[in-house]
Amino acid sequence: MLVLVTYDVATSEPGGTRRLQKVARQCQNFGQRVQYSVFECDIDPGEWAQLKHNLIEIIDEETDSLRFYYLGSNWKRRVEHVGAKPAMDLDGPLVF
Amino acid sequence: MLVLVTYDVATSEPGGTRRLQKVARQCQNFGQRVQYSVFECDIDPGEWAQLKHNLIEIIDEETDSLRFYYLGSNWKRRVEHVGAKPAMDLDGPLVF
Repeated sequence: MLVLVTYDVATSEPGGTRRLQKVARQCQNFGQRVQYSVFECDIDPGEWAQLKHNLIEIIDEETDSLRFYYLGSNWKRRVEHVGAKPAMDLDGPLVF
Repeated sequence: MLVLVTYDVATSEPGGTRRLQKVARQCQNFGQRVQYSVFECDIDPGEWAQLKHNLIEIIDEETDSLRFYYLGSNWKRRVEHVGAKPAMDLDGPLVF
C-alpha cells in the first residue's frame, strides 16, 4: 500500500531543525522523497505501524504536523508530476 | 473530487519567491492550505482544469515541481492528521 507522508516542522522552534532531519531520515528508511517535505512510502502494514510510531515520537505535536494520505495499492494512476525532479519509478526498468 | 496539490518552488532561483506566493494564492482560491506547501482542493473538473493550467503557467519547470494526488470523492477516510493546525473541516458544523 502507498502512504503519502507530508510534514511541517517548526524549525524556528528549539530543536526544530533536528526534528526535521530525524523525520526525513525515518521516511527515507521506508520510502522515497518526492518533494522537500513529501515522501511516498510503498510499505506493508507492519512497516507502516513502525514508521508512524517513530514519526509521532519525533515531532512536537504543539508546533509540528504530520499528514498521512492512504492511497491504497492502485496508486500510480492517482499521481501526476509536473516540473523538476520527477520521483524515481522504483518498479520501472533499470536503464544504464 | 479532492485533488491534493503539493509543490516545491526554488526560492533560491531568480523570481522564486514571487512564484511561490503566486502558486499559494492560486491554490487558496480553490482549496484549503493544510501545510506550508500542501493544499487540499475539493473541486469540480472544470475548476480543476483551470487551477492546474494556472499552476503550470506559474512555475519554472526546470527548477520547481508540482505533484497532484487525485483522492476521489470518498477521500476523508484516506487522510490522517497528527500535531499542530489540523485542517478546518469545511463540511463540519460551524461552532461559535
